Amino acid sequence: MTNKLDSPNFKDVLRAQHDLTGLVKKTPLMTSSILAEKASVSRLWFKCENLQNTGSFKFRGATNALCKLSKEGLLHAVATHSSGNHGSALASAARAKGIPAHIVVPKNAPYIKKTAILSYGARVTECAPTLAAREIALKKVVTSNKASAIHPYNDAHVISGQGTVATEILDEAPDADVLLVPVGGGGLLSGCALAVKHINPKVLVVGVEPKGADDAARSFKAGEIIPQESPNTVADGLLTSLGELNFPLIQTYVDDIVTVDDQTILDAMYLIWTRMKQLVEPSGAVTYAALLKGYKNFEGKKVVAVLSGGNVDPKFFLTSRQITS
Amino acid sequence: MTNKLDSPNFKDVLRAQHDLTGLVKKTPLMTSSILAEKASVSRLWFKCENLQNTGSFKFRGATNALCKLSKEGLLHAVATHSSGNHGSALASAARAKGIPAHIVVPKNAPYIKKTAILSYGARVTECAPTLAAREIALKKVVTSNKASAIHPYNDAHVISGQGTVATEILDEAPDADVLLVPVGGGGLLSGCALAVKHINPKVLVVGVEPKGADDAARSFKAGEIIPQESPNTVADGLLTSLGELNFPLIQTYVDDIVTVDDQTILDAMYLIWTRMKQLVEPSGAVTYAALLKGYKNFEGKKVVAVLSGGNVDPKFFLTSRQITS
Repeated sequence: MTNKLDSPNFKDVLRAQHDLTGLVKKTPLMTSSILAEKASVSRLWFKCENLQNTGSFKFRGATNALCKLSKEGLLHAVATHSSGNHGSALASAARAKGIPAHIVVPKNAPYIKKTAILSYGARVTECAPTLAAREIALKKVVTSNKASAIHPYNDAHVISGQGTVATEILDEAPDADVLLVPVGGGGLLSGCALAVKHINPKVLVVGVEPKGADDAARSFKAGEIIPQESPNTVADGLLTSLGELNFPLIQTYVDDIVTVDDQTILDAMYLIWTRMKQLVEPSGAVTYAALLKGYKNFEGKKVVAVLSGGNVDPKFFLTSRQITS
Repeated sequence: MTNKLDSPNFKDVLRAQHDLTGLVKKTPLMTSSILAEKASVSRLWFKCENLQNTGSFKFRGATNALCKLSKEGLLHAVATHSSGNHGSALASAARAKGIPAHIVVPKNAPYIKKTAILSYGARVTECAPTLAAREIALKKVVTSNKASAIHPYNDAHVISGQGTVATEILDEAPDADVLLVPVGGGGLLSGCALAVKHINPKVLVVGVEPKGADDAARSFKAGEIIPQESPNTVADGLLTSLGELNFPLIQTYVDDIVTVDDQTILDAMYLIWTRMKQLVEPSGAVTYAALLKGYKNFEGKKVVAVLSGGNVDPKFFLTSRQITS
């Protein structure tokens, strides 16, 4: 089995697909003729990972990482630092396996996210809101609980788990021409690109990133990881920089990375809410934003846009919209 | 064929099911273990009519009414007065058939609803915001365009069309014990009850109504139609009084009608938005509100709650919640 610190291969994705059957939801591919028309594409599907357990695709990677724990690992606990979807996903996946999850959460994390993590039965440790403080707190928790640390994206099993989003898509829409995937740390994009290019290399894989956190686009062009400094975007799930395992996979298998501005992200989100009746978070709406803005010419193409998650306070939308428009 | 002014029978529902195939969406039955747990039921399905074309079940009835038009009727136009979902539904259904739709809309109707009706290609006539003015304006439009008037609920074909919500449900969840259905004019409730009691009379059919527009509950108890005076509720789709064709069907086939207060409707809506990631309108959330409040003891039962529509301005929710809580 591929070690979690090695680069995953396509077999790892297929194994994840097998292991995750019955544990994660096979989310629907939805269509919307109105949204397709506005995007000037010939066909448009949305992969609704907002309907995944815990409200985001992160549940796939977290569950796959748990499936790959050693017998020894399963006797103890898992841990991570996260203020968002990975924290909830790991908490819920661990509860399903019957082992404790310890989540290190920065003190300034939104109340609603802390509450979600607690509602999945995790033990929450608060720390100062810096990366250094988060890593120190995680180390302590790992040592004192003999816990296995599960990284949100820089982990072979997490990447392989996220790749099952793409295998499900191509299973149901084998004639798709283009796959649009949000990119933050790169777990979802690297896993999906790895899968797509082994199933049908003709399908274009395009990452979509907010302009205010565009390290992946810059790194992709430069050919080396350029970490993100002071990210600033409404897409709070895409603030992180690319991981070391993720970047080479993205270089090898991704065709392009495009960026979208915050106002277009909010417009896309508004259309998805009101026309498709799907609650998606800003990070989940970036793929449709790319189509709205016509960053790439996909006219006449059959496009799949991944809606990566739906964890957003209904009040957030109104506030942000007032601020930015 | 049953005349549109006669009471429909179960064969009309079956014929509607046949005629609507391919024209209306077979909407998904979704589940949520968290929402089921909060409601203390053993199993809970949501029939997602918020995902129906034009965002509500009304598209079924409107499309069925159009399917039943005479050759003569199809040469001209259809018309109705509506400030809400029936207007959009009829507009879209008529466009699909290639005939014009004239919708009489009160001047004070929300901008967003008028825009929706226009976006489906209808011709909008404005009138004063009284029932008398609406009826006069509709009569004019009908005469000058040789249009067929399609009533939102007091019409046999509309009722039969709405009944297909129930046939789809029992097809997919034949072991359901209870069906919860919102009630305003009674088109959806009468059609669903008619269908359910002919398929499996053991299934309980319960109507759910907002306390601030409880004419159906009062009429059901009194054994005669007691029209609604000055309705006042956040559930803007359920303000109307029971129709004359609908009431006898409800008396014959419905087991009970319960009422829910506005705050519980908003709480239910909040949970459906944030936990299920489904945008539902207040009128669509009343069925889950009934479970939250425990108005009827459904403990241990397998329950289907119809989410009747999703046409709501995301801003509405915040505003209402601030006002009422």
